[in-house]
Amino acid sequence: MSDGLSYRDAGVDLEVAERAKERLKSLVASTRDEHTLSELGAFGGLYAVPPGMAAPVLVSSADGVGTKLKVAFAARRHDTVGQCLVNHCVNDILVQGARPLFFLDYLATGEMDETVVQEIVRGVATGCRENQCALLGGETAEMPGFYTSGEYDLAGFVVGVVERDRILDGTKIRAGDALVGIASSGLHTNGYTLARKIVFEVMGLGAHDPLPGTGRTVAEELLAVHRSYLPVLREPLESDGVHGLAHVTGGGVPGNLPRVLPAGLGAMIDRAAWEIPAVFRTLQQAGRVATEEMDRVFNMGIGMIAVVEPSFAESVMAATRARGVESWLIGSVTEGAGVSYR
Amino acid sequence: MSDGLSYRDAGVDLEVAERAKERLKSLVASTRDEHTLSELGAFGGLYAVPPGMAAPVLVSSADGVGTKLKVAFAARRHDTVGQCLVNHCVNDILVQGARPLFFLDYLATGEMDETVVQEIVRGVATGCRENQCALLGGETAEMPGFYTSGEYDLAGFVVGVVERDRILDGTKIRAGDALVGIASSGLHTNGYTLARKIVFEVMGLGAHDPLPGTGRTVAEELLAVHRSYLPVLREPLESDGVHGLAHVTGGGVPGNLPRVLPAGLGAMIDRAAWEIPAVFRTLQQAGRVATEEMDRVFNMGIGMIAVVEPSFAESVMAATRARGVESWLIGSVTEGAGVSYR
Repeated sequence: MSDGLSYRDAGVDLEVAERAKERLKSLVASTRDEHTLSELGAFGGLYAVPPGMAAPVLVSSADGVGTKLKVAFAARRHDTVGQCLVNHCVNDILVQGARPLFFLDYLATGEMDETVVQEIVRGVATGCRENQCALLGGETAEMPGFYTSGEYDLAGFVVGVVERDRILDGTKIRAGDALVGIASSGLHTNGYTLARKIVFEVMGLGAHDPLPGTGRTVAEELLAVHRSYLPVLREPLESDGVHGLAHVTGGGVPGNLPRVLPAGLGAMIDRAAWEIPAVFRTLQQAGRVATEEMDRVFNMGIGMIAVVEPSFAESVMAATRARGVESWLIGSVTEGAGVSYR
Repeated sequence: MSDGLSYRDAGVDLEVAERAKERLKSLVASTRDEHTLSELGAFGGLYAVPPGMAAPVLVSSADGVGTKLKVAFAARRHDTVGQCLVNHCVNDILVQGARPLFFLDYLATGEMDETVVQEIVRGVATGCRENQCALLGGETAEMPGFYTSGEYDLAGFVVGVVERDRILDGTKIRAGDALVGIASSGLHTNGYTLARKIVFEVMGLGAHDPLPGTGRTVAEELLAVHRSYLPVLREPLESDGVHGLAHVTGGGVPGNLPRVLPAGLGAMIDRAAWEIPAVFRTLQQAGRVATEEMDRVFNMGIGMIAVVEPSFAESVMAATRARGVESWLIGSVTEGAGVSYR
């Protein structure tokens, strides 16, 4: 029956997949810590619950990179999106007060290009190392006829831990609390469908063209790595001054800040408190996008908001600046729901 | 600037996404247990580590549904793939001895069809309930221009727990151990790229045509839910008779059984021990696929293999049959690496 069909004829080469897995081993090994009990290739990854905690609570989040991937495809640069993914997930559990333990990725391609897969996973592993979390496992799926040639989707999933009495659940937030906005590093991973339409269609630019007003190319600006706020917030979170954290993702500040505010409380944001980065001004002008729409789609330069005891605001800002990240007092918590701007 | 671009113009409707999320709440709520501390909509899901364990080890796995999704698209049936996904992930951690705690899903679509999203998530929630694990969170990403209209990708992540001294790591496996093969419910989630080529291209069938030899339609046979082996193996795992478990996924028995055998040990499989289900015989004949290729691509009717103390084999088989699942003594562990058939 040697003239019959094989899996390879159908488009799936298990040997290529095996070889790719072999090459990933050292990348994965670089993220191991003393709690990692399994090797790559096990059915499930093993991670010991860190001992010595009174009431450990696991905090978990799943996310994707979204259409930022299309920019990576256009620029043929695949080593940064993994970092974006890890950092996004880490930020999502940081806002509950958790530090990451481990991460798993899901990578789906139309056809397996070993070099591209390795670049992508290198980015994931870099993100894991920088956040001190283990890359515990993942799935690389070859799905012919599913993704356009040269394209892929990438999703990830983080598990972290927090002591039960240290969970940031917003119950300590009061009217009058200060809002410290911490700088984003660019668009992070949100608003790319609109941004790509403006940059590639309306402005007619290519990935390696300069993006007006930014001093950088389209690829440099749009592939800037989503910032992890773990390094700058680790210390402030050890005190009781931080009452809540909001990660500014899809929905912008108006969509995300209310998620951490107790019922009946809102926020007043002072637009003059920080300078909107050039990339957002360029996008708004070229796309003639309404300001309210910009606020809902993009982070506008603020990637994380710390809701803090007013007397603690200065020390949080000092902590971020000590690590080279700008932050500003951008407003305060108010009576009455919703986010207003002045 | 009301004539400028909006996110909706670019293809993303945040309001539709918000409404879809609202509808999912009750589905998610149906999977909660006493350790689930968060509501849908939190940045990260919260799950308390079950108290009373001496040395809890977390076991985690990521997986996708693969091109089985294409069958769901063709059949316009979206409520089973979520169960397949959960069960696949649960099996992957069960083989390490772990029971599931919680699950997260990643669903990516080109455009958000609320009804389809709800069907998919209903399947995921059903899978979670049946495995007694909480649907702790997930991401539903709308990525216009990424997926063909009406198509989507679905991936998932499970976290389970096992006492450190109950981890199934294969160290107890000895030559002479019995291999109990437990029936699959069909193709599970592997080999679909080849199966679809044979069924839809070579045989020229449609999703609702009868699949010769099976007494079922193509959709019924190819969308059969991937079986979870948690219900049939929960009891056997409480004893010390089970030395190892192999989940028969991509790579078939020859690709997966060696993953749990200690170095220097192999397996002899008796082909006559069980009857190959009709669907595999039909696929092999129609595609004129070599038997070795069938073995590497499909599970051939065996979805899980338990490596057991020989005296314990009967009781494992009795346990599966008591729950309506067939199992057979399909071979034994041998000196020397690799899987042979007789």
